[in-house]
Amino acid sequence: MKAVGVVVEYNPFHNGHLFHLQQAKEQTDADLSIAAMSGNFLQRGEPALVSKWARTKMALEAGVDIVFELPYRFATQHAETFAEGAVSILSAAGCDTLCFGSESGDLEAFTNTVAFLEENNEEFQSKIKFYTGEGHSYPKSIALSFQSLAPSESFIDISKPNNILGLHYIQAIIRQKSSMKVETITRKNAGYHDEHFASATIASATSIRKALFGSAGEIETIKQYVPETTYAQLINYRDQYGSFHSWENYWPLLKYKLTQSNPAELREFYEVEEGLENRLLAAASASRSFQQFMESIKTKRYTWTRLQRVCLHILTNTRKDTMKTSEKTVSYLRLLGATEKGRSYLNSKKKDFSLPLVSKLSAFSDPDIELDIKASRIYALGQKDHGQEQLLTEEFSRPPIMLKDSRR
Amino acid sequence: MKAVGVVVEYNPFHNGHLFHLQQAKEQTDADLSIAAMSGNFLQRGEPALVSKWARTKMALEAGVDIVFELPYRFATQHAETFAEGAVSILSAAGCDTLCFGSESGDLEAFTNTVAFLEENNEEFQSKIKFYTGEGHSYPKSIALSFQSLAPSESFIDISKPNNILGLHYIQAIIRQKSSMKVETITRKNAGYHDEHFASATIASATSIRKALFGSAGEIETIKQYVPETTYAQLINYRDQYGSFHSWENYWPLLKYKLTQSNPAELREFYEVEEGLENRLLAAASASRSFQQFMESIKTKRYTWTRLQRVCLHILTNTRKDTMKTSEKTVSYLRLLGATEKGRSYLNSKKKDFSLPLVSKLSAFSDPDIELDIKASRIYALGQKDHGQEQLLTEEFSRPPIMLKDSRR
Repeated sequence: MKAVGVVVEYNPFHNGHLFHLQQAKEQTDADLSIAAMSGNFLQRGEPALVSKWARTKMALEAGVDIVFELPYRFATQHAETFAEGAVSILSAAGCDTLCFGSESGDLEAFTNTVAFLEENNEEFQSKIKFYTGEGHSYPKSIALSFQSLAPSESFIDISKPNNILGLHYIQAIIRQKSSMKVETITRKNAGYHDEHFASATIASATSIRKALFGSAGEIETIKQYVPETTYAQLINYRDQYGSFHSWENYWPLLKYKLTQSNPAELREFYEVEEGLENRLLAAASASRSFQQFMESIKTKRYTWTRLQRVCLHILTNTRKDTMKTSEKTVSYLRLLGATEKGRSYLNSKKKDFSLPLVSKLSAFSDPDIELDIKASRIYALGQKDHGQEQLLTEEFSRPPIMLKDSRR
Repeated sequence: MKAVGVVVEYNPFHNGHLFHLQQAKEQTDADLSIAAMSGNFLQRGEPALVSKWARTKMALEAGVDIVFELPYRFATQHAETFAEGAVSILSAAGCDTLCFGSESGDLEAFTNTVAFLEENNEEFQSKIKFYTGEGHSYPKSIALSFQSLAPSESFIDISKPNNILGLHYIQAIIRQKSSMKVETITRKNAGYHDEHFASATIASATSIRKALFGSAGEIETIKQYVPETTYAQLINYRDQYGSFHSWENYWPLLKYKLTQSNPAELREFYEVEEGLENRLLAAASASRSFQQFMESIKTKRYTWTRLQRVCLHILTNTRKDTMKTSEKTVSYLRLLGATEKGRSYLNSKKKDFSLPLVSKLSAFSDPDIELDIKASRIYALGQKDHGQEQLLTEEFSRPPIMLKDSRR
């Protein structure tokens, strides 16, 4: 059986994801699909709208056959580390091809760019250093450096977020000496950050989330942009747990955490750079909401994403030494769910997997798993009473989700 | 001018406090009264019902002339340290006499007991060790040890909380070589822990607090037990800040703090003894309220008070090294408020004070003051929005309360 791998957040699973998934299977002639999916906290440093379990259900119901969790230590990081983690999972799980969405959609442009960057790495790095020294954010500095080196049509546009991720997937595959092949599909319509609906059926996850936090009427407007199964899972989640998760749910906790910390303690958290701790402390007491807090700490030097990640690591009490370990890749495959087809793939292949398959947390111990458990417990505090208790217990005791029927 | 000193929490100021204050002035023939008052967190490890500022107003309006703050490092401790702090303040402020309320009311019984304990200290300590080793709480062990040594009518009953405090005041005066005299007054009626109203005008602060957290109708029932000024301050506080403070206001924050900590981190907090950290972690995720949490961690070995103090130090991020400094006494006099009479006393006497007088936080720096500022900022998080912001800013910027009129 031939498997195609995808790297996803599904926050939430929408028609754009469905299109990509179907194309990925078709283009690679795959028998089944495997997703490396972020857990409860995401790359942009924010809580997922609904838990990893609800998102796993959405994925399975929409055609993903196996969902593995991308651990917190990789999922909440900049593109390079994020990609290393995802590639190590998909590669260990025996994927034939990794298929990613990109703004470019042109694989040759990617391989050209990878080769060019390898040749000119030294100059590229020194230019990045120059631009960050000028006060630009890291992503901006990368784009400016690349532009100043070689603006050519045979390269990808490195200022686009999905192109950057794709680049890092390819570099990670090379670094990890993986035999996994690569394929890319042009992303349909909606840009990653679009806040408004632009097409009849495809909308960005950002615009969908925006509608979900609106009035009851607004929630209905997302129906045309997501599979029915996603819509049902979303409504069900809100009824069962109490609300969707947003940073605002955690703002009282983050404000408290900042209030009870001193600057030296804050500097110990991952991604807190010299000087930032004082900005955080001053802004915390003056802000009534996370949005207001973020607006008051934002500068040209730090992207919104970067600052959200800083906040997330403070919220989850994640220190520099926890994130900067010598392990550059994931060391296990944590199964969140599978279809029947996925299960038979796992049964026949798991003996060949280069990493242990983890279905039960109680039977496995690893620092990355511990961090995921802690992150999930804090994620649970975004709900109240019964919803919180359900989330607190299910992380540790819940078996992977096994989809029985084949609704597709 | 002759000053009498009292050690108080005024949580809230009630008729029993008024009686004690008036008796203290009469018995010692004092011209004015000085209070060493706990700040926003109290000896039993709980937040004060209303802020130190509101309680200072109550005190001044009821006849106290000067209020100094007993810092967090002393106010939230067992009787011995609490007493050391209070005595060092009142002594430095030039009090002629310290007058404390006690169950005994017999000063000779106190001095007999102090002398007896000094003579038999070694045996006393070894007995305490024996009883704590048997699994009794520390206060219980003290009572049992004393009882086994010398149950005599010429001694005080050492199992009573106010007798114990009185004993420690006297011992602290001796240790600090203070020239301050001592006087004691029998506490009227209500026992410290009484939850129900027992007399027509005197009720315990515990029963008053219980009524305040009840329905609107219940709040009115406290009117007969407190001065009019207290009642007005309480209603005013609730209107201005949002609610009275109880541990339940801070439960989501404590639950979060516990959830994001690991056992090794918890052991660093003051009064967290080996083994307790795991009990705390397990109970936190299973509890919906502070009350439920406390009931599930309570054992014979730890008193409720002791466990509340543990929770408080975790909430305020107060580690062992912060509380166990080499300074055994308070090193400044932080003025919270004064009447006109109090002001003229301060003006004429402050040059003779053995400790610096602090009216403005911005003009003074001390580790104990820093701890008080942090504690007050966390105290503020017990309110929402506007009430929280007021409390957050007033701690640092508010000048002492100066009572102008003499309503009494």
